[in-house]
Amino acid sequence: MLRRFIPQEFDFFDCFEKAAAEAVTAAKLLLKMTENYGDADPIAREIEAVEHACDDITHQAMDRLNKVFITPLDREDIHAIIIRLDDVVDLIHASSSRMAFLHIEKPTTHSINMAKQIVRGCEKIADAVRGLRFTKNYEQVTKDCIAIHEAENAADDLLHYALAELFTTVKDPITVIKWKDIYESLEAVTDRQEAVANALHGVIVKMS
Amino acid sequence: MLRRFIPQEFDFFDCFEKAAAEAVTAAKLLLKMTENYGDADPIAREIEAVEHACDDITHQAMDRLNKVFITPLDREDIHAIIIRLDDVVDLIHASSSRMAFLHIEKPTTHSINMAKQIVRGCEKIADAVRGLRFTKNYEQVTKDCIAIHEAENAADDLLHYALAELFTTVKDPITVIKWKDIYESLEAVTDRQEAVANALHGVIVKMS
Amino acid sequence: MLRRFIPQEFDFFDCFEKAAAEAVTAAKLLLKMTENYGDADPIAREIEAVEHACDDITHQAMDRLNKVFITPLDREDIHAIIIRLDDVVDLIHASSSRMAFLHIEKPTTHSINMAKQIVRGCEKIADAVRGLRFTKNYEQVTKDCIAIHEAENAADDLLHYALAELFTTVKDPITVIKWKDIYESLEAVTDRQEAVANALHGVIVKMS
Repeated sequence: MLRRFIPQEFDFFDCFEKAAAEAVTAAKLLLKMTENYGDADPIAREIEAVEHACDDITHQAMDRLNKVFITPLDREDIHAIIIRLDDVVDLIHASSSRMAFLHIEKPTTHSINMAKQIVRGCEKIADAVRGLRFTKNYEQVTKDCIAIHEAENAADDLLHYALAELFTTVKDPITVIKWKDIYESLEAVTDRQEAVANALHGVIVKMS
Repeated sequence: MLRRFIPQEFDFFDCFEKAAAEAVTAAKLLLKMTENYGDADPIAREIEAVEHACDDITHQAMDRLNKVFITPLDREDIHAIIIRLDDVVDLIHASSSRMAFLHIEKPTTHSINMAKQIVRGCEKIADAVRGLRFTKNYEQVTKDCIAIHEAENAADDLLHYALAELFTTVKDPITVIKWKDIYESLEAVTDRQEAVANALHGVIVKMS
Repeated sequence: MLRRFIPQEFDFFDCFEKAAAEAVTAAKLLLKMTENYGDADPIAREIEAVEHACDDITHQAMDRLNKVFITPLDREDIHAIIIRLDDVVDLIHASSSRMAFLHIEKPTTHSINMAKQIVRGCEKIADAVRGLRFTKNYEQVTKDCIAIHEAENAADDLLHYALAELFTTVKDPITVIKWKDIYESLEAVTDRQEAVANALHGVIVKMS
């Protein structure tokens, strides 16, 4: 069992789980935005609120990390995991805000499918983070990390199809610029999800 | 006191401070360029000279890191801090050179404000790096790191406003491409500043 | 001698060498594509096969890293090196697939020269990785890492010249968007190569 000597007052695993839950919420709102683009502005504001909530979790964790004596994982790993979880939510926020203010006509199937991969990646992050407390779960966590990589690969393929179609079918340069930006910012979210998976898997590798 | 057993001949903290000072100089020149765009070319050359000076500091530090026996922080942390400080100067250089050669008509208020955030972030990096020598300063260094994050957030908001305005007001696609590129390259500088803050805060978290 | 107590059944250095060899192969195919653009599609498929081969090497290494008891380098460093080698191949693949599907008329001299720097960087990565087994090679590995940085700098300069020329000579916005994307994705490969160099040099710094 990994979790020894953790001071009662603060539970870093709990903090990872909360941040991951915010990431799942943000991802689902992003998907909702692609499926209900008429409500893009209010949904963008909801995502902004989620981003602030995640910032608070991050700041609290950072503050405690400076103060507690004994930590359940190496301090630098807790630091890396928290920062990268926060990055995912930041990028979902950036992506949704772009999609809202760029005033596209309506989301493409590719963008909806990319948002679905983002939801899938965030759900797997939440699973992986939940498994992190006990070494007996590490084989499952490794599988979750692989699933996060697969979601990134899928988003990457979608980006390529989307761009190929964009340059073939759209002739208006401004529309091309907008969509290229949206697709790339969606794909960038999955890169950050992969960075979380790498940090989590790095911990497992160190611990096993 | 952290700074024990440092060989007399090389002071890594001094090296961090020198690199951070070059970053401040580069950032101020970038701001000067946005405010005096008529002199963009000579200012771009000045920034290039600063970048070379920072490269020399980096190479000297790397060389010493290979040779000295005892270091004041973990070797890999010194390595990460030096590389990331150098990255900030590299990105300021890249950003200024884009701004010079893209031949825009004149800088927008948004780009001037982004350059101001870059100056602010670099000044806070210089403060943080100066505080790194002694653990008694670590609370202040943590505050400096938070200020660097705030500068990044501010630049991110400016990027969003700037892009929203760009797509609403500018109709010429080439001008849109140029400005989007400039805004994004300015914002990328603040991402690298945040990476420095993360490396510095990671050290503090490990040491406290 | 570094290489003590490695279990007979798995050699991580061998695995680094295999991944680096795939990176060299991918880079040479990318250069071939820029020089024989008429064959872009079949060459893109060859690069995709190389990317899958590298994925297999990565997964095998990750799997072993979870299972073996004693490793020749710190587990987190093996993890970082493998991930970053895989990233280089991923980005070469992304870059080549963009170049193939964007249907440009023919590669420019700048893009050919950027591909040459990518080949040079990958060859130096292969050299560096080969030297990693024994501390006696570390001075040479450091030189290889510097050469990788130089290739990145050269690619960066080429990007700037290429973009300056692009905005001066090309008037069609869609063509500008396509070429900007290709040049930037080629330069991004060399950034990932630099990340490998940083990981390798970080190990050396820790070990010396």
